[in-house]
Parts: sequence; structure tokens; C-alpha cells
Amino acid sequence: MNAHDKFIAATAHVDAAAIAPLPNSRKIYVEGSRPDIRVPMREISQSDTPASFGAEQNPPIFVYDCSGPYSDPQAKIDIRSGLPALRQQWIEERGDTELLPDLSSEYGRARAADPALDELRFPGLHRKPRRAKAGANVSQMHYARRGIITPEMEYVAIRENLNREQYIASLRASGGLKGQKMADMMLRQHPGQHFGASIPGAITPEFVRSEIARGRAIIPNNINHPESEPMIIGRNFLVKINANIGNSAVTSSIAEEVDKMTWSIRWGGDTVMDLSTGKNIHETREWIIRNSPVPIGTVPIYQALEKVDGKAEELTWEIFRDTLIEQAEQGVDYFTIHAGVLLRYVPLTANRMTGIVSRGGSIMAKWCLAHHKESFLYTHFEDICAIMKAYDVAFSLGDGLRPGSIFDANDEAQLGELKTLGELTDIAWKHDVQTIIEGPGHVPLHLIKENMDLQLEHCKEAPFYTLGPLTTDIAPGYDHITSGIGAATIGWYGTAMLCYVTPKEHLGLPNKQDVKEGIITYKLAAHAADLAKGHPGAQIRDNALSKARFEFRWEDQFNLGLDPDKAKDFHDETLPKDSAKVAHFCSMCGPHFCSMKITQDVRDFAAAQGIGEAEALKKGMEVKSVEFVESGAEVYRNV
Amino acid sequence: MNAHDKFIAATAHVDAAAIAPLPNSRKIYVEGSRPDIRVPMREISQSDTPASFGAEQNPPIFVYDCSGPYSDPQAKIDIRSGLPALRQQWIEERGDTELLPDLSSEYGRARAADPALDELRFPGLHRKPRRAKAGANVSQMHYARRGIITPEMEYVAIRENLNREQYIASLRASGGLKGQKMADMMLRQHPGQHFGASIPGAITPEFVRSEIARGRAIIPNNINHPESEPMIIGRNFLVKINANIGNSAVTSSIAEEVDKMTWSIRWGGDTVMDLSTGKNIHETREWIIRNSPVPIGTVPIYQALEKVDGKAEELTWEIFRDTLIEQAEQGVDYFTIHAGVLLRYVPLTANRMTGIVSRGGSIMAKWCLAHHKESFLYTHFEDICAIMKAYDVAFSLGDGLRPGSIFDANDEAQLGELKTLGELTDIAWKHDVQTIIEGPGHVPLHLIKENMDLQLEHCKEAPFYTLGPLTTDIAPGYDHITSGIGAATIGWYGTAMLCYVTPKEHLGLPNKQDVKEGIITYKLAAHAADLAKGHPGAQIRDNALSKARFEFRWEDQFNLGLDPDKAKDFHDETLPKDSAKVAHFCSMCGPHFCSMKITQDVRDFAAAQGIGEAEALKKGMEVKSVEFVESGAEVYRNV
Repeated sequence: MNAHDKFIAATAHVDAAAIAPLPNSRKIYVEGSRPDIRVPMREISQSDTPASFGAEQNPPIFVYDCSGPYSDPQAKIDIRSGLPALRQQWIEERGDTELLPDLSSEYGRARAADPALDELRFPGLHRKPRRAKAGANVSQMHYARRGIITPEMEYVAIRENLNREQYIASLRASGGLKGQKMADMMLRQHPGQHFGASIPGAITPEFVRSEIARGRAIIPNNINHPESEPMIIGRNFLVKINANIGNSAVTSSIAEEVDKMTWSIRWGGDTVMDLSTGKNIHETREWIIRNSPVPIGTVPIYQALEKVDGKAEELTWEIFRDTLIEQAEQGVDYFTIHAGVLLRYVPLTANRMTGIVSRGGSIMAKWCLAHHKESFLYTHFEDICAIMKAYDVAFSLGDGLRPGSIFDANDEAQLGELKTLGELTDIAWKHDVQTIIEGPGHVPLHLIKENMDLQLEHCKEAPFYTLGPLTTDIAPGYDHITSGIGAATIGWYGTAMLCYVTPKEHLGLPNKQDVKEGIITYKLAAHAADLAKGHPGAQIRDNALSKARFEFRWEDQFNLGLDPDKAKDFHDETLPKDSAKVAHFCSMCGPHFCSMKITQDVRDFAAAQGIGEAEALKKGMEVKSVEFVESGAEVYRNV
Repeated sequence: MNAHDKFIAATAHVDAAAIAPLPNSRKIYVEGSRPDIRVPMREISQSDTPASFGAEQNPPIFVYDCSGPYSDPQAKIDIRSGLPALRQQWIEERGDTELLPDLSSEYGRARAADPALDELRFPGLHRKPRRAKAGANVSQMHYARRGIITPEMEYVAIRENLNREQYIASLRASGGLKGQKMADMMLRQHPGQHFGASIPGAITPEFVRSEIARGRAIIPNNINHPESEPMIIGRNFLVKINANIGNSAVTSSIAEEVDKMTWSIRWGGDTVMDLSTGKNIHETREWIIRNSPVPIGTVPIYQALEKVDGKAEELTWEIFRDTLIEQAEQGVDYFTIHAGVLLRYVPLTANRMTGIVSRGGSIMAKWCLAHHKESFLYTHFEDICAIMKAYDVAFSLGDGLRPGSIFDANDEAQLGELKTLGELTDIAWKHDVQTIIEGPGHVPLHLIKENMDLQLEHCKEAPFYTLGPLTTDIAPGYDHITSGIGAATIGWYGTAMLCYVTPKEHLGLPNKQDVKEGIITYKLAAHAADLAKGHPGAQIRDNALSKARFEFRWEDQFNLGLDPDKAKDFHDETLPKDSAKVAHFCSMCGPHFCSMKITQDVRDFAAAQGIGEAEALKKGMEVKSVEFVESGAEVYRNV
């Protein structure tokens, strides 16, 4: 769809680029303790090792799959109907919610009744809004603290394990001593450096429950977003990434934002934040949520500000409250709430290089100054908790005073607010409301650890959710990279979710290509963090890809990577012929200079002597010098 | 030039894209103690702060400039003539060299005499090769150890300081209390974490000399490459980056490689390695060196292998020696020599995931196995030293056994070789030969520090020069980023030079766009490392850019960045009109939601009360609560 075409609900259709399965990939479902717990994964099949390298079978590997039904050829996709409500039964079974006769939000009702919006409105929602029964708390944290393992918890436990047992079994089944040796190799992984994380070898539903109960992880899943596939955010789980989308007054349409959502999840966005600020926010969000298999986050103050025509000082608790309820009944899974922007912190920003760069933070600072009192987000925080627990919306406590430049990193304003976020976490937890904490921003490499350490201390291990951080300010156009460096680093230290930054950061609104670039950058950063933490099984994919690379299985190398399309295109730019994809050398060096080929020659050379490779080498050394023998004696310990 | 056109020397011309000055930039020269020490820098001018933000003057900042005469509109560029020999006088003055009647290398003479090569040959060299007089040592290390400060040392001292005194003076000159406050702010920088580096506040020629004398830094500058502008590589100096170029049997021509060189230095390549492996290596290199203002590195074994038709086992010391002399007399500034690949290490690679991935390393491993003895690089290491010191070629001791996958990181083969490189460093230093040490490769984040620590220990702080390292294997197509993460990290820990990786790594040969992408990624990684180390003045550029960003000086924001062209293009994609570049909001949020605009509103709001901003804020707080007053009392300490 062209962004400049008028969006019409009746003709809305899915982005064709987002639905084809990735090459050699198949969506599989791992079933849980009941048939309606079906956890999606992507299985990537591999070709056999060529005869010259030993003719082994390479079993498929399983990777985390955020793409929902879109990449499943069995699924019937019609974005005018939305996705199936896979969690609806689980929610209903708990018996602690009720369907409401109508939307509770005044604004929501007004939009629903406005015939001028008919043309734009999502046509496929035929159920009523749902809310906790009076006095009930429907948050996953509340269940967890009562010892209940929900289907959502079991679902994420299965999801986090990535079908590793199946992969191990397939490896072991390849048989023989050689097969066992290969299996050992493919499963070997460097011990990590975890900085106090407690990651078990396998994730059990009970572990999920206990982590949620103590606030160290959340499953963001509003009862009004039953289409979502449960996922978990916490330092003892795989590091997740968020993609921001959203239209603005300046550009972009509903169709474009829905396309960005399906595109984001195709490439691995674990959650999506809809940061729309233009007109038709309400309708855009409805289309996104109804079609999103991943949790959706928002910053409700943006919409509230629209309702008062951009005049921050005219915001009121009543308008904000109605907005929270409006969005909660649409199904938003987590709200960024900048309740930590206290009046006393605002002056601390006056001598900053870049003042307040968080939109929400600056809106609240303006309000605080205009009224000379603490914001309604702070004074009504317990009222907000009451709304959150009635729908199981999670808090993402916003860092409204995050640094917008290296200069401002780790200053009093930022760290003061962080401490307040810790106090608010206690209040949220008192209400059993799931909570994550937002973090910076712009921070030089050596000051990143302080952010993590203080967050863990003040917020008692509530999951940290950081924007980057950018490690230098001097590369506009490349801030996905300046921030990817910081993101990998802080992920290693313990951050649970990384909010992506696109190449357009500071310069313009990301298009689909920018969204993909941001996502892949953050997927690789999150994975680098998982490896460094020593997350069990994290290295399986690296090992498989590197084996494919060494054996010149080009297609497998492409397909095992995060972006098979780009890898193949890059290869084909230099060596376009199909025959090049079975060549035992590559375009970088040509046949004479291929180190991998030479390495194989080394092995062949040894084999040609009629003895094993290691033996040949050993013999060669033995006859040469005592030094060799001494070293050689040690060399073969592991063979 | 189109890569597929035939290259003809007579019509060779400079890449037009590489010579235009960058926007609002001017090349300046800082003069040293003698008029022929003229150190180039790039001055980036800035517009004034708009009236609404205080109407300040923003003095120009000075940035490191690798682009040589190409970006100087005064210079006459003709790549058929090459660059002026700016160091020739300094070399001659020392009186320890002599011009040779002819090339010393047999191969060099044969190529020079071959009429079939006339069409390709660089036509502009009209001087004879130069060599140390018998018994003399012309390395900068040798001079340094005798207490001599060469013009080259003074040059790099001036270069490293980046005209900071001038910038400070301009800032101070803006006058008045407000001007002083701004100056303090623009010069403020976070103290770094330096891990044992000893970076002085300002670099003096004597400091340069002492660092070179103790082997902690090198100035790679062959006496046969007098066109080069001296630069320094060492952990107590700015982190440098290297760009690899080079043709191969599969693709690319002389013209394309010369274009890549001028393109690399435009964007900030501090040195360039010519890794050509195809035909006409000799002639390609001549064109590159004669036109290069930055040091050129090579891996001589690549060419030696061509001379024996790719049969590694047929390599001999004599062929290799002739190749070294051939290249030394062309002016190559540093040689990668894989002398640490010992026979006893080769079996340690047999159970690796990806074997030996260094081309040079695999060639030498094959040779060692074929002959069952140590390589001639190792056995003739002192003979090589004798050649190096006769031309001042620096060693880059190659890590032939670097890991090619996360699996293989920090294994016995790699770390064994590193120890041997330390022993070879001692031998090189015995001969006063400048030496740097190459490092990995593929290493997960948490194992990077071990690489740096062991290198510092084994190699006694000889500069470390690493390829990345890549922090995960799973993102082919994005390995500039997987490795940029590792590069920033190891740069912070103490690596002196980062060898770039392009997006095409593992997949194909980089084109110009890939080269730029790799360079900018590595420039930002090197800068992130400088900031983290607390390199004096490193934050000036971040501060200036962030101030421009906050004040909506869009053009300044673009121009102060590493890639003004891309930043402007990205901005214009969303808001193409010129008026948008003076708008006090941007395309991301529109006017209502612009946090920077709101921050300014906050300041204006305070000012409108007829008192100063800080006072207004303080007053507002005083009347509200005791808590505010308590905090407020502390707030204004720094105002």
C-alpha cells in the first residue's frame, strides 16, 4: 500500500512481503499439557555435509518465532478479521472476568459512535470488552503469587526452551562414535559471565511462575488482547527486543503502521510499541492490536495530549484516566507511564546539554511547572494500579528524564528519577501489577554498568527495558549501530528487553527498510548478550551456522542467519550463478586463497598418509623435535 | 570508472566522489616547529545559536582528517603523477639512507622491464628506491631509542591534539559570564575508565618519542612512501581504524581499488591494507601507494603464493624474501607476517568448528605440514627484521590461528600463537623494528577482555590491532555490526587499531558503499572507545553535535556527524523542504510532541515569570513542600 493512498477499511489487506515463510523454514507447534497450548517455533532445515567434509546429516534447528500466524501457510490471513483469540478460553476459564455491555471509556464510545470514522474503523471485532470482576485482580503476577501456573506461564516456558531436547535427540540419533563426537561439538558452549543472573538449564513452568511472582519477569498480556502469543521479559530469560512504530502528524497512515507491525514481527520484534501521535490514533491502534500476535505497548499520555490540543498544562487526571481505560479495553499490553518525573527533578535538567528528550517526560515536566505540583501520574499512581490489574496491563515505568546526549549521561536528574521508579515499583508490586523499568538513552560505554547496577538495586531486579543506549552522539544516520553497541553491552549486564533504534533516529520517521535494519541490529545485539550471559543453548545457532560456513553449505549459511534474504543477495552480487553456491571457495579470495579450503587440504593431506588426521600430525611432530612431542602429548587429550 | 572497463594508465583519473570537501568543512594546516611540518585537520564551521535559544556563537570544531590532499581544493590531483613526497626532505636530512641504482628485487625488476605491462603501469614515479645505508637502522623506533624526536613524531603529536587549544580559545573568546559558562559546558567530559592506559592531557613530541621507544606505539612510514602523512598507532593515542581493500582472482580492477582507497580515507580510514590476490598485484599496489596519504599495509605471503601458482608447499624463503624487498621498495608501510603459526599449534586446530580462517595462517600451516618443520617466517625472523629496519617497514604480527567462529574463541591454538607473537615482539624490538600485534576474530562479548589482557601481558603493550571481533556468528550481512560491538569494546579495553569489517564479510567482496558502511561503523566504534577511555577532548564533538541537535541547527547536526550526506538524506526523506531545516521540531513527533521544543517551553515559561529559569523553578518548589526545599537546596550547587 502506498502511504499516500487513502486508507479504507473495506479493502485493507496484509502486506504480502510479511507472510511468505523464510527459506527452508517451517512453522512448527510444540504442544503443552493441553491441546490448546501450541507454541510456535521456526524450524530451519539444513542440507547434508558434502562428502568431502564427511557426509554428515545436519538436523534442523529451532529458533524463536515472533511472526505469529503470518508465516504459517496453513493460516488464513485477513487483517479485516484480525487474528484468532487463542487465549480467550484460558481467560474465560479463570472465571474472574466479565464482559462489559459497552466500552467504559467515554472517548472510546464517542469514537465507536462516530459515523465519519466508519470507513477507517476495524470491522472485525465482534466481542465486548472484558474486565476483572469487581475486586478481582487478573494479573499474571497475582496468579503467580497465589501459586497458580497459568497456561500463559507454561506457554512461555516451552517457548524459551526452543525445542532443544528435540534438537539434541536428533543430533544423538545420527549414530556412531563420529555422530556422538559431532553432537558434543554442536552442543558445546562457552560458560558465560552472568553478573548475578540465575538462568536455569531448562525453563520450567514453575520457574516462570516464581520469576513472575518475585517481579523479576513479566508476561505482558492484556485480557482484551487474547490474540497475543505469550512471551516473557526478564533477566533470566532470552533477551527480547521491542520495535517502535507509530504515525505522526507529519506523515504515515494506518495501513503503513499495520504493515510495519507485521514486518517487525517477521524479523523478530518481540513486542511492538505504537507511538502514534497523529489523528486517528484510536483507530490505528485497533487495527494493530487485532492483528498483532505480540504484545503492544503505548504511551497513553501522547493520546491524552491530543485530546487537549497539545496543551500539556490542560491535561487532567480525568482525561488521562479515560485514556487508560480506552486503551486497556482495546487490549494494550503495557503502558509507559512517566510517573517518576517529580517536580524536584525538573530543575536538575536546566543545565543539561539536551534538556528533557523523552516526549512523555517533557509533557509531564511542563505540566508540573505549570501547576507547581506533582503530576497526576504520581499522585494517582495507586488509581492507575487499580486499572492495570483489572485488565492485566503491565507498567513500563518511563524514564522521562533519560539523557539525550553523552554529556547528560548518569546525571542527578536521571538517577534521581530511577530511584523514584524503584519506589513506584514497590507500589505496583503491592497491587500485584507486573512492572518493567525503562532506561536510557545516551551513555558512554564505561558508564553503562552503573545504570544496570543502580537499576537492579533500586528496582529490585524488576526487568530493565532500555533504549540502546547510544554510546556516542556523533553518528546520525548510524544510531542503530551506536546504540546496538550499548544494547549488547547492557543486555549482557542484565537488561531484559532492548528497545530498538533505527538508522533514522534523530532524523526522520523510519520506513519499512529502516524498521528491518533496526530489528536485525537489535536481534544480533540481544543474541550477543545471550551468548555473553551464557544462556543455555544460545550457541546452538552460532555453531550450526559456523559449521555450514566451514563446509561451504552456502544456502544453509544464509538460512541460519537472521536475514537470509540479505545474505543471499550479498553473495549473489559477487557470484550470481547458482553453481557458486556449491563452490568450495568464495568470492572474497578465490580458490587459491581460501583458508577454509586450505584447512580442508591440511586435513586431507594428513588423511592421505593412511593414518588419521590427528595421528598424521602427531607423527609428523614426533620425528621432528622433543618440543613437538611435549606439546603433542598434551594436544590429544580431548580427541 | 566502471569496474568492467579495461584499466589504462594513460587515462586514469581520480574518483570524483572522493575529492569534494565535506559540507561546511575546510582543510586547515597546523604548522609545527618548521614550515614543512604542516598537519592537516578538518575544520567544521557552525551557525549561530538561534535567538530563541540564546543567540550564541558556536566556534568551529576540528576533527581528525585522513583524506590527504584529496579534500583540499588548493591541491592539484592527478593520480597519474601521485601525491607530493612530503616526507622526502626529512628522510634525506637524516643522512642514513641512500638511493639505489635499481630495484633490489628480481621480481620487481622483471615487472618493470615487461613491456606488456606498460599500459597498466603507474607512470608517475621518477625517483629511485631508497634503503638504509649499510649497517644503518632507519626505523622510527631506532631514532626514538636514541632520543631523537623526528619531524614525523612532532607531526603526529600535533595531529593527535586536534587543535584543541584553538577551539578552547575561541570558546573563551565568546566573552561574558554566559560565554564562560558555555565554554565550561562544551569542554566538560566524563572521566573515563582506562584499564591502565596512560593518556596525557596533551600529546607532546617527547611523549610520542617515549611511547615509540618503549614499543607502545608505532608510526608506520616506509622511507619509500614519502607521500604519507604520519599517524600513530598506540593505546595512549586516539583509536585508529584500518580499511581492507584489494582485488581478487574473481573480481575488481586497479581503478576500482584506487577508488576504494581514496573513498576509504575520505570517510576516515587511518590506514589501508591492500589484500589483493589476483593478477597485477604489483601494479595495483604501485598505484595505491603513490596516491595514498595513509600508511599501506599488505600480507606479502599472498603475493608470494601467486608466484608459486598457489602451491603453498612450494613457497621458499628466497621467494618470500624477494617479495618483501619488492614491496618494501614500493613503499609498503607495514607487513602482516604470520610467523607465529608454529607446527605444534596446527594440530590444535583440528577439532575446531572452523579450522584456520586466516588466509596467511592456513597457507603457512599447509607449508609446515608439508615440510614437517617450522616455517621460514619463523626460522628467518631475524633476517626479516634486517629487511624491515632497512626501510622502516613495521611488523603487524599476524594471528594466523585466530578463531573463525564463536566456538573457536580463545582456544589453545589462538592463545598459544599469541604467546609466540609476544616472543617475536621481543626479537623485533631487539632490532628496533616497530611492531603491532593482530588479534581476533570471532569472540563472544564476555571473552574479549581475556584477549586484551593476555595481549598486554605477552606482548608487553605492543599495540593491538584486532579484526572486530565479531560477537556472534548468526548475522551474515550485518557483520560490520556484530563486529562493531566487539571493536568498540576491545578498543575501550586498550586496542590501538580496529580493522574494519564490511557488511559483505563472509559473503562477497565489498563495493564502495560497503567500504563506507564499514568505515563509518568503525569510526563510531573507535570514538565510542575513546569516550569510554576518557581520551582528552574526545567528547568535544559529541557535545557540539548534541548542542546543535538541541537547538535545531539541523545543518550543523548533519555536518558535525561522521556522515553528513546520509544524515541529510535521511532527514530530507521525511521533510524534504529547506524550511524544515530551520524548523524547531522534526519529523519524528511533529510540533506538539517535540520534547526539545517542550523543554524550551519549560525554560521560556520560567523566564516569563520575570525571574531566571532556575529561580522560577526554585520558587515554585519552595512554596510546595519541605521535601522540595531540601532537594532544591542541593540542586543549585553547580549553577
